[in-house]
Amino acid sequence: MDSASSSYTYLGPSGTFTEAALLQVPGAERARRVPSSSAEMALSMIRSGEVDAAMLPIENSIEGGVSATLDAIATGQELRIIREAIVPVSFVLAAPAGVQRESVSRVGTHPHAWAQTRGWLEKNIPQAEYVPATSTAAAAHELLSETPAYQAAICAKLVAEQLGLNILAEAIEDNAGAVTRFVLIARPGVLPAPTGSDKTTVAIPLPEDRPGALMEILDQFATRGVNLSRIESRPTGQFLGHYFFSIDAEGHLADARMADALGALHRISPHLRFMGSYPRADAQYPLIPEHTTDRAFESAQRWLAELRGAQPE
Amino acid sequence: MDSASSSYTYLGPSGTFTEAALLQVPGAERARRVPSSSAEMALSMIRSGEVDAAMLPIENSIEGGVSATLDAIATGQELRIIREAIVPVSFVLAAPAGVQRESVSRVGTHPHAWAQTRGWLEKNIPQAEYVPATSTAAAAHELLSETPAYQAAICAKLVAEQLGLNILAEAIEDNAGAVTRFVLIARPGVLPAPTGSDKTTVAIPLPEDRPGALMEILDQFATRGVNLSRIESRPTGQFLGHYFFSIDAEGHLADARMADALGALHRISPHLRFMGSYPRADAQYPLIPEHTTDRAFESAQRWLAELRGAQPE
Amino acid sequence: MDSASSSYTYLGPSGTFTEAALLQVPGAERARRVPSSSAEMALSMIRSGEVDAAMLPIENSIEGGVSATLDAIATGQELRIIREAIVPVSFVLAAPAGVQRESVSRVGTHPHAWAQTRGWLEKNIPQAEYVPATSTAAAAHELLSETPAYQAAICAKLVAEQLGLNILAEAIEDNAGAVTRFVLIARPGVLPAPTGSDKTTVAIPLPEDRPGALMEILDQFATRGVNLSRIESRPTGQFLGHYFFSIDAEGHLADARMADALGALHRISPHLRFMGSYPRADAQYPLIPEHTTDRAFESAQRWLAELRGAQPE
Amino acid sequence: MDSASSSYTYLGPSGTFTEAALLQVPGAERARRVPSSSAEMALSMIRSGEVDAAMLPIENSIEGGVSATLDAIATGQELRIIREAIVPVSFVLAAPAGVQRESVSRVGTHPHAWAQTRGWLEKNIPQAEYVPATSTAAAAHELLSETPAYQAAICAKLVAEQLGLNILAEAIEDNAGAVTRFVLIARPGVLPAPTGSDKTTVAIPLPEDRPGALMEILDQFATRGVNLSRIESRPTGQFLGHYFFSIDAEGHLADARMADALGALHRISPHLRFMGSYPRADAQYPLIPEHTTDRAFESAQRWLAELRGAQPE
Repeated sequence: MDSASSSYTYLGPSGTFTEAALLQVPGAERARRVPSSSAEMALSMIRSGEVDAAMLPIENSIEGGVSATLDAIATGQELRIIREAIVPVSFVLAAPAGVQRESVSRVGTHPHAWAQTRGWLEKNIPQAEYVPATSTAAAAHELLSETPAYQAAICAKLVAEQLGLNILAEAIEDNAGAVTRFVLIARPGVLPAPTGSDKTTVAIPLPEDRPGALMEILDQFATRGVNLSRIESRPTGQFLGHYFFSIDAEGHLADARMADALGALHRISPHLRFMGSYPRADAQYPLIPEHTTDRAFESAQRWLAELRGAQPE
Repeated sequence: MDSASSSYTYLGPSGTFTEAALLQVPGAERARRVPSSSAEMALSMIRSGEVDAAMLPIENSIEGGVSATLDAIATGQELRIIREAIVPVSFVLAAPAGVQRESVSRVGTHPHAWAQTRGWLEKNIPQAEYVPATSTAAAAHELLSETPAYQAAICAKLVAEQLGLNILAEAIEDNAGAVTRFVLIARPGVLPAPTGSDKTTVAIPLPEDRPGALMEILDQFATRGVNLSRIESRPTGQFLGHYFFSIDAEGHLADARMADALGALHRISPHLRFMGSYPRADAQYPLIPEHTTDRAFESAQRWLAELRGAQPE
Repeated sequence: MDSASSSYTYLGPSGTFTEAALLQVPGAERARRVPSSSAEMALSMIRSGEVDAAMLPIENSIEGGVSATLDAIATGQELRIIREAIVPVSFVLAAPAGVQRESVSRVGTHPHAWAQTRGWLEKNIPQAEYVPATSTAAAAHELLSETPAYQAAICAKLVAEQLGLNILAEAIEDNAGAVTRFVLIARPGVLPAPTGSDKTTVAIPLPEDRPGALMEILDQFATRGVNLSRIESRPTGQFLGHYFFSIDAEGHLADARMADALGALHRISPHLRFMGSYPRADAQYPLIPEHTTDRAFESAQRWLAELRGAQPE
Repeated sequence: MDSASSSYTYLGPSGTFTEAALLQVPGAERARRVPSSSAEMALSMIRSGEVDAAMLPIENSIEGGVSATLDAIATGQELRIIREAIVPVSFVLAAPAGVQRESVSRVGTHPHAWAQTRGWLEKNIPQAEYVPATSTAAAAHELLSETPAYQAAICAKLVAEQLGLNILAEAIEDNAGAVTRFVLIARPGVLPAPTGSDKTTVAIPLPEDRPGALMEILDQFATRGVNLSRIESRPTGQFLGHYFFSIDAEGHLADARMADALGALHRISPHLRFMGSYPRADAQYPLIPEHTTDRAFESAQRWLAELRGAQPE
């Protein structure tokens, strides 16, 4: 995907943490970027061809939509994750020129961002009343309206800079160090090339509700030396007691051990969905046991081919 | 816990879906019920002894706080889940007396509730502008303020009834049938008695990041015929690549197979945390394989005791 | 193998139970049949090309050599099992014309055959003294020598008939119903065609002496729905604590699930030895779970090929 | 068992390798020792109380009876293995005073011993004809009869010494270094005390013939860190396709992990048979993973007891 000539959507409005994640994509800064008001809308823009890809939050996030995002790409027309991005969850207190910290009597932000900065707010601007907004970026934009509902907003640094707001305080989150993970989603196409530090996401319906079915699924990874970095049981929404597993596994579809594991899973649960192989944002390289390397797979294939083709003299 | 003389907190303000879940607890209607503004606050009210228990959402919810809730009780001073409750996620459009549906030009609610009713809103009151609120219940309360920011609120039926609002439309959610799961959390004390249809929640730190460690953990359940109904890997927050597993397993600590599985898990991961055994909200009775019944465990114990105590004539 | 024009060896002398097993092979009656005095000798006759195949006992047998047989084909120049045969272990009391049961004062046979007929002997010819022989067939042959060491022999019916001896009593074994299993061994060549009721024999060195290594090996069969019908740990003879596993698995190398299991085993234990796929003597047809059929493997392969070849529009 | 005042049987006649194994038992030299002519007879002498214990070969042996021994103690009235012994399989050529090696024209021994010394015989006394005997010791005894059938016997050094025979050659076996394993079997009574280097033998009927049943059994050992040093599938003799597993596991019934594994096996296969915990002849000390030590089990038990006894304040 030639990023500069591509078009993207993201959870908007402009200036969200999600847009910050999108801007990590090479070329995205110069590309067309269209905000969406929900994950569902973003996905339908990809499916309809209106944009090439969407950046969406995939883990606990002040921009919500998390499990919903995974559930949405696990069903309906197929989509693929082609990249992941990690963004620190750090807030600024922003205001238009002329507003001082002491004079802030009302502050606006998304309820989740408010929950994560209340310690700072109570200590530093205890006089300020809280006004909810639909997103942290929306709160920043509100400051530029004719009659803003508050004097300051809690938001990402990105939107404050985009809108030319003053930053009254930085890093005001009560718990430092939090990050949110985002993924870039596109229609199925060329797989990102393997880098040696990759991740594969799959959704696997549980074939039956019996002790051992989950084990049987996980065993397909373990027996081939494939580590999992995330696993979540998710109700299928069909009826009570039906689940699928949403799994991130270390490695790429191009790795023999991963392909072999997915093939085995396809036999056990033929409706599994491959949701992408893509570089890991943390760029860590897993240790691959010798017997699960591509070389070991090739050697076994050669041995088998010889056995099966054995001819008498 | 004698519910009527107990005191409770819940994610407020009054009238939330969480309070609706709390009202399913026998006696809670006549008990003291104190709203909390966050899950963290609710948990600290239990820990301090200010209330006896807290009802909190545990799954995707328009009232948020979900993974946070589980993470919060997985660390810090021990707490126990003593009950679960399931509440249908259904919204009403409520307004003060005198307001007609046609005259609604602004409607308030939590951003998540808005996202789940937008289909209905666009079709039925397309003229109405959306105003965010910190919760669906807060939106309803706003209607009773002197100068409300909107004429109608999207909220639970409970709060509309509590406040004497008119219900202009019911069941306006775009996807019918959704439910949210809540849990009642208390300080460690008497375990709820086993009912035969129980659930046990544990948090299990992954001993090492290696292929097979997760399998080893899950195997302790599977090998004893204990089904899992939920599994989620959660970062420990300590450093990258460290996880714990948050698991709901079918059965009660009083069941021999569950106690045996937990004992085995304690050996593998000594810092695992038992977070409660309590009746399942869906009241389903799992099939127990004969070799994992209490009777099979007792029989094996007797056999072992005889072997180990064997004396010569 | 065109049996009538083939040449065979077997544990001799002529008339043993092993020759009876060999005579089950179509065409063997008209083929050249050379007795061997030991399993080692028989195997070296195949390896040298002197004969085409050898019939040898593979399970507890009055003709011994059992574990030795399996160990011998698990090492050295490769050989293949191409057929199995089951022979009832039933003995006759045979004597030259003119000898009556009452006049038998000495009876000859192999020590194992003697152990298995002692009940009958004590009851029916209590006067007879026992004289050991190197095999049951050798005891029968002795009766035709100039000065036989005894008047009667305990042997297979086959040798009595071959030598024209009188059968004084049949089915004199103390425990009826015992059978011995034999295998026909040849140099590697064309694999016997799959019949749907097949068996595959492999020798798998244990990669390391650690808990779980055996499990890992067996899991490769279990996870692909392959039943085992025999498993034995055998010391490798290299040094203490080193083992290989001698395994009979249900199915044929031509079955996708078996080939997949053997490929996985080759990765884990690259020195495993394939010792043949051949029809089961009991002609039982195992139930194949749907997800381990050839069809399921092909379907998974097609799915993977599509995924891996995915191209952009 | 006070060995000197105990009485023993063993596979006779006197001077067999089995008696050599018995003489490794402290006090056995001064105890009453009665030869048996078969393993079955030896076991019935214990069961009837005629002797206190029996030494029998348990692995491939020139004295046979191996699998038969294990099968015999796996069924019928319970017996226990209380000790194991390892004896080098080394042969001497023995003859009465006055016989020279060159003058030996006939040599007697058990067919298995003959098979294992043929290389030496062909090279060193090629002129000698072979005469079978029921055991190596019987061959030695024959030399003292009035009209011996041969001039020399191939036997254990023990019997040659017992009978005052001359040893014409020592260590004449073709493959040096072979050993045979024997076990001492008694009626159930006091278990041998744990030494830290112990072995436990069990017979476990396979509950059903399905993929995974064997895995489930072995998993009970693996999941508790118990290594296996021997495993054999054995037909139950009941009908085709029914098996039990004969297993040697590292550790003692007094070890928490072994007791826990056996308890689990009792639930899965209630007719399993405990056949003894006893010191290993090789005196090797296995590495015990921390989470499977007695300490880990006690710690888990305490934790569970606290949880289950938890009372409200």
